[in-house]
Amino acid sequence: MARTGTRSSFVRFVIVLSLGLACVSASAGVASAQSPRNVILIIGDGMDDQQISIARNYLEGARGRLTLDNLPVRGAAHVLTVSDDDPGQPIYVADSANTATSMATGEVTSRGRIATTASTDRDITTIIELAEAAGLATGIVATSSVTDATPASFIAHVNQRFCENPGQMTNIEYRGRLIGDCSQDLKANGGLGSISEQLAASDVDVILGGGAKHFEPMAEGEERSVKELAAANGYRVIVNKAELESTVGGGKLLGLFAEGHLPVMLQGEGGRVAEMPTPSLMNRLHRYLGGVTLPEPMTCVPNPAFANTPTLAGMTDVALARLSQASSRGFFLVIESASIDKKSHARDACGSIGELEQLDRAVDRALAFAEGFSDTLILVTADHGHAAQIIPNESLFTRFGVPVYTPGHLARLRTPEGGIMGVNYATNNFNLEEHTGVHVPVYANRAAIGIVPPMITQPEIFDIAAGYLGLRRMVADNTAP
Amino acid sequence: MARTGTRSSFVRFVIVLSLGLACVSASAGVASAQSPRNVILIIGDGMDDQQISIARNYLEGARGRLTLDNLPVRGAAHVLTVSDDDPGQPIYVADSANTATSMATGEVTSRGRIATTASTDRDITTIIELAEAAGLATGIVATSSVTDATPASFIAHVNQRFCENPGQMTNIEYRGRLIGDCSQDLKANGGLGSISEQLAASDVDVILGGGAKHFEPMAEGEERSVKELAAANGYRVIVNKAELESTVGGGKLLGLFAEGHLPVMLQGEGGRVAEMPTPSLMNRLHRYLGGVTLPEPMTCVPNPAFANTPTLAGMTDVALARLSQASSRGFFLVIESASIDKKSHARDACGSIGELEQLDRAVDRALAFAEGFSDTLILVTADHGHAAQIIPNESLFTRFGVPVYTPGHLARLRTPEGGIMGVNYATNNFNLEEHTGVHVPVYANRAAIGIVPPMITQPEIFDIAAGYLGLRRMVADNTAP
Repeated sequence: MARTGTRSSFVRFVIVLSLGLACVSASAGVASAQSPRNVILIIGDGMDDQQISIARNYLEGARGRLTLDNLPVRGAAHVLTVSDDDPGQPIYVADSANTATSMATGEVTSRGRIATTASTDRDITTIIELAEAAGLATGIVATSSVTDATPASFIAHVNQRFCENPGQMTNIEYRGRLIGDCSQDLKANGGLGSISEQLAASDVDVILGGGAKHFEPMAEGEERSVKELAAANGYRVIVNKAELESTVGGGKLLGLFAEGHLPVMLQGEGGRVAEMPTPSLMNRLHRYLGGVTLPEPMTCVPNPAFANTPTLAGMTDVALARLSQASSRGFFLVIESASIDKKSHARDACGSIGELEQLDRAVDRALAFAEGFSDTLILVTADHGHAAQIIPNESLFTRFGVPVYTPGHLARLRTPEGGIMGVNYATNNFNLEEHTGVHVPVYANRAAIGIVPPMITQPEIFDIAAGYLGLRRMVADNTAP
Repeated sequence: MARTGTRSSFVRFVIVLSLGLACVSASAGVASAQSPRNVILIIGDGMDDQQISIARNYLEGARGRLTLDNLPVRGAAHVLTVSDDDPGQPIYVADSANTATSMATGEVTSRGRIATTASTDRDITTIIELAEAAGLATGIVATSSVTDATPASFIAHVNQRFCENPGQMTNIEYRGRLIGDCSQDLKANGGLGSISEQLAASDVDVILGGGAKHFEPMAEGEERSVKELAAANGYRVIVNKAELESTVGGGKLLGLFAEGHLPVMLQGEGGRVAEMPTPSLMNRLHRYLGGVTLPEPMTCVPNPAFANTPTLAGMTDVALARLSQASSRGFFLVIESASIDKKSHARDACGSIGELEQLDRAVDRALAFAEGFSDTLILVTADHGHAAQIIPNESLFTRFGVPVYTPGHLARLRTPEGGIMGVNYATNNFNLEEHTGVHVPVYANRAAIGIVPPMITQPEIFDIAAGYLGLRRMVADNTAP
């Protein structure tokens, strides 16, 4: 958030929130006090159609179906991103910060931003802020650190996603190179502080995920840690699966089940990820000569580090139970399976498959909940596309008699149904693959029939969710000085 | 088609067709004699969600919409393929022959097969054969040669897609290597002959596309060309746009508007396609050092060779006008925009964009037709995924200060709205990129509401189309000796 001259940003934030309250009004077809309405927004980070096809083939077989496949509504959302230097200029590939901001606020912004406007760096009111102002309960569940871009964008406002804790606000470096700075977001400069501080100071009823390390540093200008700040703000802080499973009663709950992101459920056998094909010497001389050795096929196995980690479905159950009790007016809950993306960056096909399975199980839990609470809209979508592609295990051109292989990294997965599925990662030569600019799938339950068109832009996710809950977008953000 | 011992395949084919006729029956909700029903199946070859996103960004802008995006029904189809050696074994990436066979027959087969079963090589009755037997009019429109895999699979039966004309039936070679053989499909061996011969001998009312060269050779065992065979079978043969536009009256029409595939509408400026990034010498020594030169941005321009080529929309108009007159019982028409695929194989992003635009205009014409004939089901889908991916023009990792670039080929398109869109091709190191195994989009018009589920398998395209027309799948194919 930028400083706004004589008036502090914090004061402006309070004004904007008050306006938010004033803007909340009943409209045709929204919930009355007697019938609470709920929205469960489930985000698969990087979960594009390739990722879903990969997971289906591996988990259910090519002819099988995921829970996702059985949802009655299916559409697509086109992702929108703009340049931070010139917000009139389109950017065709997004990151998780600007896409989560789209879904949380209905506004298009630039990469790396957490609920702030491109270039002008103004805070944008999120659907969780609007829901709180309207008396609804709210929740955030993620398999990443809860300070990561996707969960953060639903409640925090920072100019740079890397500013996750008070010790990480200025001069953020990677290999000696400046990659981010949030000086303007320091409380001392009239900002709201780091992401973890904003979460600790929030009124979100349930926050579950990883990221304990971001709550350890001292809060800016205070003699206590961010975690202590959270406790003082009414949060019960829990740190392991046993505590999660035994939690009873109400009140605000902050679950931090790992230092950083939660461990993932599956991995390649021996920890293997996609590998480069190895051409023979002759083939290095000319691509029509010699041969190539492809990576050996592998299966996916449980990740030992996951053993005591809460599942996404388990966290979803706890969040739903608490939120449905927390307000008679309904709730908004965002759930993210974060490491479909993180493992695709790392060329770890098994990792992504397991996290998509986690999402599918969380969708099961949400559907089960909606059986009992029919005024519950379940939206399932992705934030952006990702690198992985299913390519032929045997090239279409094998019979042409020349060595044909990907110039990128290849995982060959031996599927339980007896096939071999080639998964290609070839968007770049870096340690981490790129996102892609494909539009992303949107799935929804029965409650969405008639209100989720077949094709939308990503900011319309906000419009649909807010509309269902009777919340109205804060237009004041864009017209304020 | 395989020889079947003492009984010739041709005789068996006639028996199967007769069985097909017997199988056609009215079922609940299908057309009566008073209300003809029509199905228009529009296939974008290789038109996955990436291709659609690329075309939308370029043609309409990121916030714009294609006609496709406005269709009221949107789902997805999972592509199914099996091994020819072991049809119980799944293959995760398809080709256009087995996918068109899925849509034309409802059966899953192996790559390269034209309406024949995997391994056992039996003919499978197609929806066009069923429609003809039921007295419906039928049509095939394609921007490829009409003998190419997609159009062929709706009427012909051959064990190998390369067997497009009588001169190309045995010992098909590429660089001295055998890549196909259709000896068993020779008429002399009891088969139905090459694809062009089967088209020429067919009762399809309208066949429009390219492929004149496949109709020039002498028909097997005859003293006349395949084209003369077609004429003797009642086809009026036309060869240019003027003839197409002035065609009047009824009767069977065969339009062959190019020697091979039709020229495409757009190309990169200067004929450029995607190119390899050029790393500096230092970068070749270590990937964290030096720099890289990316291909210069380019725009898409008209392809001069396209000037006198009929558009897909123009061919669609002619086909619809004739088919709606040809039978009082309705029609089945398949339309293919073939070179979305062919240009993606060739890493020609502009070529694919133009052919997707052609498809979108053909959808416009189909929708306009359905305004006047409301019992018209329009299905739009792809046969398989393809290589192209939108990747960041500026890497997500640029600020890390190392040269980051694709290991494949890159086109950087300067979009009319002022952005630069990176399109990556990196599935292999061959002259032609691979297909991918992603599920593909399915779009449909109002008539599809309630009959096209959100997720289907590709063979269900046949079930939906045949069901709408009151045709029944021939199960006899799989139980015949």
